[in-house]
Amino acid sequence: MVRVTFLPNNENIEIANGDSLWETILKAGIRPNSICGGKGICGRCKVLLKEGITEPTVQETELLSPEEIKKGIRLACQTRLYNNCTVEILPENRTGLQDIFPLNRVDNAKDFKSSFWLDANVEKIFLTVDKPSLLDQRSDWGRIKEALVRKKEKNLNYLQTPLPLLKKLPVLLREADFIVTVVICNGKITALEKGDTADKVFGMAFDLGTTTVAGYLIDLKTGKEVSALSKTNSQISYGDNIISRIDFTQNKENGLAILQKEIINTINELINETIQNTGISRDNIYEITIAANTCIHHLFLGIIPIYLASSPFLAAFNRGLSLKAKEIPALYLSPETNIYMLPTISAFIGSDVLAGILFNGMNDREEITLLIDLGTNGEVILSKNGELWACSTAAGPAFEGIGISCGMRAVEGAIDRVKLSKNTINRHVIGNGNPKGICGSGIIDLVSDMLRIGLIDKSGRLMTKKECPSGISEQIKNRLDIKSGENIFLLVKENETEEGKEIYLSQKDIREIQVAKAAIASGIKILLREAALETKDIGELFLAGSFGNFINIENAIKIDLLPNISLKRISLVGNAAGKGAELALCSRRIREIGEGIYKDVKYVELSTHPNFSKEFMETISF
Amino acid sequence: MVRVTFLPNNENIEIANGDSLWETILKAGIRPNSICGGKGICGRCKVLLKEGITEPTVQETELLSPEEIKKGIRLACQTRLYNNCTVEILPENRTGLQDIFPLNRVDNAKDFKSSFWLDANVEKIFLTVDKPSLLDQRSDWGRIKEALVRKKEKNLNYLQTPLPLLKKLPVLLREADFIVTVVICNGKITALEKGDTADKVFGMAFDLGTTTVAGYLIDLKTGKEVSALSKTNSQISYGDNIISRIDFTQNKENGLAILQKEIINTINELINETIQNTGISRDNIYEITIAANTCIHHLFLGIIPIYLASSPFLAAFNRGLSLKAKEIPALYLSPETNIYMLPTISAFIGSDVLAGILFNGMNDREEITLLIDLGTNGEVILSKNGELWACSTAAGPAFEGIGISCGMRAVEGAIDRVKLSKNTINRHVIGNGNPKGICGSGIIDLVSDMLRIGLIDKSGRLMTKKECPSGISEQIKNRLDIKSGENIFLLVKENETEEGKEIYLSQKDIREIQVAKAAIASGIKILLREAALETKDIGELFLAGSFGNFINIENAIKIDLLPNISLKRISLVGNAAGKGAELALCSRRIREIGEGIYKDVKYVELSTHPNFSKEFMETISF
Repeated sequence: MVRVTFLPNNENIEIANGDSLWETILKAGIRPNSICGGKGICGRCKVLLKEGITEPTVQETELLSPEEIKKGIRLACQTRLYNNCTVEILPENRTGLQDIFPLNRVDNAKDFKSSFWLDANVEKIFLTVDKPSLLDQRSDWGRIKEALVRKKEKNLNYLQTPLPLLKKLPVLLREADFIVTVVICNGKITALEKGDTADKVFGMAFDLGTTTVAGYLIDLKTGKEVSALSKTNSQISYGDNIISRIDFTQNKENGLAILQKEIINTINELINETIQNTGISRDNIYEITIAANTCIHHLFLGIIPIYLASSPFLAAFNRGLSLKAKEIPALYLSPETNIYMLPTISAFIGSDVLAGILFNGMNDREEITLLIDLGTNGEVILSKNGELWACSTAAGPAFEGIGISCGMRAVEGAIDRVKLSKNTINRHVIGNGNPKGICGSGIIDLVSDMLRIGLIDKSGRLMTKKECPSGISEQIKNRLDIKSGENIFLLVKENETEEGKEIYLSQKDIREIQVAKAAIASGIKILLREAALETKDIGELFLAGSFGNFINIENAIKIDLLPNISLKRISLVGNAAGKGAELALCSRRIREIGEGIYKDVKYVELSTHPNFSKEFMETISF
Repeated sequence: MVRVTFLPNNENIEIANGDSLWETILKAGIRPNSICGGKGICGRCKVLLKEGITEPTVQETELLSPEEIKKGIRLACQTRLYNNCTVEILPENRTGLQDIFPLNRVDNAKDFKSSFWLDANVEKIFLTVDKPSLLDQRSDWGRIKEALVRKKEKNLNYLQTPLPLLKKLPVLLREADFIVTVVICNGKITALEKGDTADKVFGMAFDLGTTTVAGYLIDLKTGKEVSALSKTNSQISYGDNIISRIDFTQNKENGLAILQKEIINTINELINETIQNTGISRDNIYEITIAANTCIHHLFLGIIPIYLASSPFLAAFNRGLSLKAKEIPALYLSPETNIYMLPTISAFIGSDVLAGILFNGMNDREEITLLIDLGTNGEVILSKNGELWACSTAAGPAFEGIGISCGMRAVEGAIDRVKLSKNTINRHVIGNGNPKGICGSGIIDLVSDMLRIGLIDKSGRLMTKKECPSGISEQIKNRLDIKSGENIFLLVKENETEEGKEIYLSQKDIREIQVAKAAIASGIKILLREAALETKDIGELFLAGSFGNFINIENAIKIDLLPNISLKRISLVGNAAGKGAELALCSRRIREIGEGIYKDVKYVELSTHPNFSKEFMETISF
């Protein structure tokens, strides 16, 4: 046995001789940074060994600097332990999994004014049930049904009741002295509560992203959003992209179960936080809806995702699915809580995209509309008179701040707006404190302004101090620097940041942005061509993504991320996937629409598309 | 700790000091006889202590003879163990739980000739599914559905699929090379099998009686009964009647769970035996239907039955219920197997009675019909132009051979027919071997003939040798004897029986028969009066019960068990409950009829009926 002690808390854990430090860290509940999911490729899972320092492996020699190796820094995934050791995992090498962030809240109530939209799948009805006597020997259930029929004046003959409720029925009814509230969901009685609880009807909508999970609590009586929180998907420790995670399910024993557990844990933490913040009871959440990309959708359900990623790229199923919380292992909701999974469209176009289509009513527009959803991948959807085309671009999570040296999500401490001129630099920090990093909208502003004043050329090359165009003030010019052999632009000096570490944009970061925007731009072009349209035909463009509400659209057009159309025709729609999941939670009619259109979306496979490489190469420059 | 050793096998078990021998015996898997369920009332759970003999308790002194106490016989439920002991439980003090008996088989195929009746809820469809390609990226499920639609030419848009199946789908489909058979049950795809298995479609119908459980295997492609077995309900160790068992759930920790486990075990054993005998696979049983009295129905589902037995006598619910095998703990069937519980009618009129009504088409008859179902209780149902009345009589299980000194069920070794004259006695034994006891039909024959030749008088009194009427031969007269101070009639001498123990009918046995037949006869009279009818109006009488096919109807009329109507108008219908459950398994239409009528049956509560005591006293004599 080997004892591993974690600093700073001195917690320790015993493991078998030769066990991997990566697995040990995960077991200890610590989430290391990782892109590759523990394969020794990305070099992110750095740990500082204080005692029991191991010999560096070949991978470590390649991925770590000599200074790091000398200090005792190793990669957790490359380290096997044969001696007791003491380990510190620096905060920057952990993912911010413990952080739950409030999201910009939207009051949906106004959108749901029409009763057409507020048509929830959950209904609570308060009942005073006839008490039994020798002259009235109807069954417990029979008298509830009779009271329901009396109140609703409907034929409820085929209303089903699950066994767990029937088991509780006799005792509960008598304890409640025959005064109860029934909960009807999906045409079934799913709960029975003592007394009058008809005013407590809640549901939650979730958007499960590769990187970020958002959870919204909705009052189903009003359609009002009561709470909106987001959290990093804790699957991220097993790879920051879908392909790494699919690999993990294929190559790791119990890989599927582990990833399922991680996404369920993330949801559980959002639910717990929501309950704690709002004071509502877990038992008053009767339904949740879930939008997700197809891989996370499969992982949440425990369905092997390997056929999503190998040709010919098939989902197990696409249609919407209703199930019960108890069917999902360790999902901490009342067991009979209904779960509605929105339909997915293809292996690469998930229900998050369908939710975006629904939120923006794209199925029902006469004008030509385009939706760009910038999550970890970028999805593009085009509609023309109800006809729909979709593609998924391998944009990567750059616009979520992931894969960028000092990138972060659009949460407190993120630089979300930058204004750079030849002489001055201004920035805005979410929460107005000291900055911790830069998020997608800030990156777009920065790149756009650097292009404008010539610090980046059309090819994307970052100037050195020497190459700096004339007319740039010394103050700005001095920000062009070199770090670990790479050209960078220094945005914030270390003494001005929250964590005492400088914030900068590197040449590599700019390349990431170029790849991302080229992927999206070529996707848009190919879709337009499929529909025999041109950029000028676009009537409205919806830009979705968790960064969406902060972005400077002019700058996004300047870097060719967005097509060059009139600003008036572009709307920022925020987390359209989450909002679409909210709509599906509030309206059965919306679900029906979704069930009606998912099959009709024409999925355009870019990887095999004859024009893709050409378009991509044409759009990679600024 | 105390060590208890069981003879003859010398198996032993360690228990805590002071533990009850009754519980220890149950733990050891031995089923003692019991009527009261371990309360020290019935005196049935006799054990022979060979070592560690305990002091007799007050109850034991009352319920056991001095000889028994001297020999070391004790009541298991009264014995607490403080010393190691050796125990023998004689075969006669065990219930015959290990015995599974084949039932008379009925070939239903002829009844199901019309496709109207063979309309099973399970359908299997063989499919050759399109293989995927980059030009056909429909989901796995999407291509199955498309193949289904092609084959069935139906709109299957709303066909649901349970999550466990979706989880298996991607791998199974590829392993099967896209050639599969789907199973559709209840409008859901419940299973997917590799290759063409469309010819293997089975279901089982069960009748759960207080004493006996019957299980029938049906080929759902033909409606043919493949196997029919019966077994003692192993709940019997906790009391041989419903009231004892309800008491047990109320007064014993986990009592409900224990009784649920016992009935599930009984069903499991019938399923196992059926599978073993027929060679069919457990996975090819796709649906089971269950008819039961309301208490066993509740116990099977794990619903507390206490409100069935206390005024105003309410069931938790009556309507039919569909559920999945996985919802019933440890029911050994494929988890997605559908279970259909037929509707019950009231706390005392179960789905076994509804099944009997369906089997005899009583809901749809113009003439007046009467159904008498002799199980552990006797239920009586009267129909008049589709109008239905029902009552439950506390007849007890005498006609099942229970509670009768030498009584047994109508299985191999039972005397099922007796012919007694003044000079001779003839008997028939099921299986033609040596007799082991007497079953209901034999008891009816014997009592009827004893009445005829004057060995029993009208009041039910059994003559002594002295009182024996003249004209009776010595051979018969000598059979009138005294045993343990009670008058008996010796039917078979000990050297002629299988187990070397004499078979006789006692005065107490005759009283049991009197109470049982009076209960039923008064129930019939009261129902007729409710419907403003008389005995002569009865157009057809159906006599159901597991003993049914052996009974001599003339004799049953002679002892006033059946009303005195023309024999031509009486049909023996066997286990009508089991047959009704079979019908419900084979026909959705039959289920619909059941769901339509259960509420309309007028239940007549005898216990509070003003005429009941009078009728009962009038019918107790022969």
